[in-house]
Amino acid sequence: MRIQFQCDYNEGAHPRILQRLTETNYVQTPGYGEDEFCAHARDLIRSACHAPKADVHFLVGGTQTNATVIASALRPHQGVVCAATGHINVHETGAVEHTGHKVLALPASNGKITAGQVSDVLQGHHDDVNFEHMVQPGMVYISFPTEYGTLYSLSELTAISDVCRKWGVPLFVDGARLGYGLMSSRCDVTLPDLARLADVFYIGGTKQGALFGEAVVITADALKKDFRYNIKQNGGMLAKGRLLGIQFETLFTDNLYFEMAAHADRLAERIHEAFAAKGIPFHVDSPTNQQFPILTDAQREVLDRDFVSDFWVRLDDNHCCVRYCTSWATREEAVDLLVAAINAL
Amino acid sequence: MRIQFQCDYNEGAHPRILQRLTETNYVQTPGYGEDEFCAHARDLIRSACHAPKADVHFLVGGTQTNATVIASALRPHQGVVCAATGHINVHETGAVEHTGHKVLALPASNGKITAGQVSDVLQGHHDDVNFEHMVQPGMVYISFPTEYGTLYSLSELTAISDVCRKWGVPLFVDGARLGYGLMSSRCDVTLPDLARLADVFYIGGTKQGALFGEAVVITADALKKDFRYNIKQNGGMLAKGRLLGIQFETLFTDNLYFEMAAHADRLAERIHEAFAAKGIPFHVDSPTNQQFPILTDAQREVLDRDFVSDFWVRLDDNHCCVRYCTSWATREEAVDLLVAAINAL
Amino acid sequence: MRIQFQCDYNEGAHPRILQRLTETNYVQTPGYGEDEFCAHARDLIRSACHAPKADVHFLVGGTQTNATVIASALRPHQGVVCAATGHINVHETGAVEHTGHKVLALPASNGKITAGQVSDVLQGHHDDVNFEHMVQPGMVYISFPTEYGTLYSLSELTAISDVCRKWGVPLFVDGARLGYGLMSSRCDVTLPDLARLADVFYIGGTKQGALFGEAVVITADALKKDFRYNIKQNGGMLAKGRLLGIQFETLFTDNLYFEMAAHADRLAERIHEAFAAKGIPFHVDSPTNQQFPILTDAQREVLDRDFVSDFWVRLDDNHCCVRYCTSWATREEAVDLLVAAINAL
Amino acid sequence: MRIQFQCDYNEGAHPRILQRLTETNYVQTPGYGEDEFCAHARDLIRSACHAPKADVHFLVGGTQTNATVIASALRPHQGVVCAATGHINVHETGAVEHTGHKVLALPASNGKITAGQVSDVLQGHHDDVNFEHMVQPGMVYISFPTEYGTLYSLSELTAISDVCRKWGVPLFVDGARLGYGLMSSRCDVTLPDLARLADVFYIGGTKQGALFGEAVVITADALKKDFRYNIKQNGGMLAKGRLLGIQFETLFTDNLYFEMAAHADRLAERIHEAFAAKGIPFHVDSPTNQQFPILTDAQREVLDRDFVSDFWVRLDDNHCCVRYCTSWATREEAVDLLVAAINAL
Repeated sequence: MRIQFQCDYNEGAHPRILQRLTETNYVQTPGYGEDEFCAHARDLIRSACHAPKADVHFLVGGTQTNATVIASALRPHQGVVCAATGHINVHETGAVEHTGHKVLALPASNGKITAGQVSDVLQGHHDDVNFEHMVQPGMVYISFPTEYGTLYSLSELTAISDVCRKWGVPLFVDGARLGYGLMSSRCDVTLPDLARLADVFYIGGTKQGALFGEAVVITADALKKDFRYNIKQNGGMLAKGRLLGIQFETLFTDNLYFEMAAHADRLAERIHEAFAAKGIPFHVDSPTNQQFPILTDAQREVLDRDFVSDFWVRLDDNHCCVRYCTSWATREEAVDLLVAAINAL
Repeated sequence: MRIQFQCDYNEGAHPRILQRLTETNYVQTPGYGEDEFCAHARDLIRSACHAPKADVHFLVGGTQTNATVIASALRPHQGVVCAATGHINVHETGAVEHTGHKVLALPASNGKITAGQVSDVLQGHHDDVNFEHMVQPGMVYISFPTEYGTLYSLSELTAISDVCRKWGVPLFVDGARLGYGLMSSRCDVTLPDLARLADVFYIGGTKQGALFGEAVVITADALKKDFRYNIKQNGGMLAKGRLLGIQFETLFTDNLYFEMAAHADRLAERIHEAFAAKGIPFHVDSPTNQQFPILTDAQREVLDRDFVSDFWVRLDDNHCCVRYCTSWATREEAVDLLVAAINAL
Repeated sequence: MRIQFQCDYNEGAHPRILQRLTETNYVQTPGYGEDEFCAHARDLIRSACHAPKADVHFLVGGTQTNATVIASALRPHQGVVCAATGHINVHETGAVEHTGHKVLALPASNGKITAGQVSDVLQGHHDDVNFEHMVQPGMVYISFPTEYGTLYSLSELTAISDVCRKWGVPLFVDGARLGYGLMSSRCDVTLPDLARLADVFYIGGTKQGALFGEAVVITADALKKDFRYNIKQNGGMLAKGRLLGIQFETLFTDNLYFEMAAHADRLAERIHEAFAAKGIPFHVDSPTNQQFPILTDAQREVLDRDFVSDFWVRLDDNHCCVRYCTSWATREEAVDLLVAAINAL
Repeated sequence: MRIQFQCDYNEGAHPRILQRLTETNYVQTPGYGEDEFCAHARDLIRSACHAPKADVHFLVGGTQTNATVIASALRPHQGVVCAATGHINVHETGAVEHTGHKVLALPASNGKITAGQVSDVLQGHHDDVNFEHMVQPGMVYISFPTEYGTLYSLSELTAISDVCRKWGVPLFVDGARLGYGLMSSRCDVTLPDLARLADVFYIGGTKQGALFGEAVVITADALKKDFRYNIKQNGGMLAKGRLLGIQFETLFTDNLYFEMAAHADRLAERIHEAFAAKGIPFHVDSPTNQQFPILTDAQREVLDRDFVSDFWVRLDDNHCCVRYCTSWATREEAVDLLVAAINAL
């Protein structure tokens, strides 16, 4: 049996989550997130964000969360600005467009866009004589970390937020892997920073040790109204909403969410160093739990014997980028084996 | 603490499901339902349906499943015929319309529509001189059991299916509470009957002992193509799809799904008999796990002291219909207490 | 050649319109409604409405106008309340649902709904414990005249407007046949009344002597922003927008719009009286340019020899309701012939 | 008064069209395109296309036509491949996305895409391991001429058509300015070629001498079914459909459509030659009625005194591309004046 490193959702959930689900199994609660577990989890998250007035909602998965947040915020003639490599532009089967909105893709650099690019789009739309014939930018979407594992620095994030606020366009941060970003040794952004700079963002559970679940944090008052209707309409309102409350309660108790992320980041760094020590270059220099080495086909064949990676992109006749992910569930021994295999290349 | 009878998702999941999730927690699998647990669960369901060629897909919740099945099947100018009381028409925040399609509501009797009504709609559209100015009926949706707990007989279901096939319009059966229907003492429809008569239907997990999950069974070839794209687009493709596979594998092993439903139906019948013995009438005569007695406000006040019911509808100044539900998790002792309270009214 | 009474758009346009189009044909203008003709027509309409601050937009047809106004005003989880017989609910091939919104149909009486019904819907949604699971009423749509030619009195319209304002839900009046209503001898509503009581409405051109065109009047500030984007997105922004400006300029010069409507209403009354004198009943008692007599099949056969009517609905084995329409183009002599034929029945 | 060259819809319509509208004004017809004028116009177009079995439909404008054709053809998870500069991607306020579909934009060269690019997209989607997470290419859209006035050669068009047919993906050609393309001295494609190579295309009227109107020609059987429902749903079914029939009947009688286009192309060539003779470069080398010279700001200021052009794009601090258009209505004398002004630069 090969060891799987292809994604950060190869296993179930952190055992404390299963334990809590089991302990609470016979507690009777109302449905749809109106239970005490959810209420408590919301408080824990507001507190962690230093955002006592934020609205917190629990949805099931990332695609659903993105489409719900975006459709809830936009008017029909508006679109959402994002990196061309952004998840909503590439890997959600057009879920945003399915709700009627264009994704306004910008050229990305290592998965990131800049405040300058965002400013140009917003200013450019404003200045265009044909503006009414064009989709109006109505939201800006970034991922933190990005789909390439990279991070915005505090100053970059602040600059994007400033541009958005100047133009009155809300900033939405997709935090499907938020913890891996926040716990990275190269991250200077905190959760309260994010809550302060974004208008809405989410804290990913699915890829960070929960069975499933994403916690949407809405800090901008203009985006709060009637959000639960939109969750329901987009199929994200879990009947047994308590399951989300229990999971996020567990994740935000005793620092579990952050400890799991730190574990994964540390193991990813071991993998990174092994490739680097071997002189193997990277497609993107990621400081988080996803690593993107460029392998020769021969190297890849050797590593694939015992380890599953995710094929990312073919670069030339002889080279590919592949992805190795770590997670809360990655065992130190598995990384030992992978590092040994890398060393032996 | 009052005992909650207001819905069939007040608790977590059947303990065997939690146990299996715990046992399999560290097994590594690929995501998105492409794992061995899902494959096995699909086989078990195909076998239970006597439908070896059916496609089986796992989604997370009912609203999402309804919108996905309907949007995947219809062309833009088509709508879905359903009872005015149908879940998609009333309690899904317009999720079907959100995908661009009209719900063509028919007057319902006890939650049901008839083959005659369906025939009239399809024939009527065909005959109308303005047909191109009207939404074309492109699918028929019924619930089994209905939102009022009632059932279609085999002959009623066959007649609806015949009309649909005559007109080439697929029949979609919402089985959010399917087991409670199939195990009712007053049901003459089997799972293979349903698989034979419907073009697509789903087997509800959320309301029948799973943490969550609905298993869509597509028997009509015309509806199979590219369905997984539509699941993803509608936010229903769980990253850790294995969770659905493990749950349905458990439900369809050792008859668990049906045993749980039979348990709930039996307890519901005890509640039904208690009300009937007291001379309390019913808003709808339901043979399944939902019961709809008509209470005076005084009776309701008494019962509400110790038991939570679901307010259904006010009938006059002094009478309401309320709903009592049972589930896999309902304890015999809880029903003893409720029956005693009814007797004491 | 039979004389056609089946609708009010059997002919081209009032000759003054064709004359003005011909006179202005070589004048060069910018496109998309940003020309001087449109600007002038807007002023004329604002003046006729006593609404100097209203925004006025020209669209091509009614279905497009309805979908554009509604989609521009609603958030995704909202629907539009209307009479079950309303045009948007019946004869627009689901154009409103195509933009993602449910039509919340109310039982209609002679094409009308009441302030009481609207109040019940808005209050009922507010009071429902499951409100977030239901489509939120976000707009009220009525037709003036209705699809059955009937009218709201000033007090009825005021009551509906009051309910809408109490709940903060905009009132939209479909005036595809507005002139026929305003000029009816039984109408006590004026154009300024409408502008005052509705939040947005439109003045129909297509059915009232123009080649095509509907003039949307937005009086509520909240609905004004970015409306032109929505026109464009919904395919209603005519490249040669001047054509709409020229037509509405002509219609609102020298009272032409109202004179044409008065002409049609007067001829419709002659037809009404002829049927009434014969003791022929009406399906609906319409005071405008559409008449709905109930004919025996034998009577219908006789009249159909020389006159085309619009089949409306079969009432029993021997009786149908048919519709006769008049318009600006209906000749007195044609009505003489029809009246004679009715008398001879 | 400056002479307007900024677009090809600055004036009304060819006088023969106005004359025919006037002549036929009192003819009574049924609505919605079911009249004899439309029937005759359809025959004329089928004949001109050598496509006796084609379905021909008349819509009002280009944005509406594009959205209707695309939405009618695609399933929800599909998108439409087009040049990044394509009209649907840039200048239709997201009308395609409003119907739920992603525009899959490809880098364009002079407004064109290649068969190789299309093949790569279709093959690439097929080969991608994550294909179900991505929008499926379901149609290919090209413009002929493009938004930059350029043309596909017969061999280029044939190659694109071949790729589309290999993959079973329909090819849609936007012919908003079709005549200007077909009549260009550098065009080797005929109308029957187009009808043979495309699965659906339209013949533009709005920009080619009609008041408005686009004639959709559907040659692929798979795209024919229920198209009229989709026209109605998208607001494109003109009540007085005869207006479209009369216009296209006139355009396709005595070769008027092609003569007008040839006139415009010839005048555009005069403008082209004047700029070229002056050594002024072009942003794109267009062989049709749109010309894209690159002017210094000083040159532009001089020409703008007497002539209106369309600002296209700023190229550097001192240079812009502007657009000059000709049409059926452009007078020889107006071009004389423009040419003289260019010579005098």
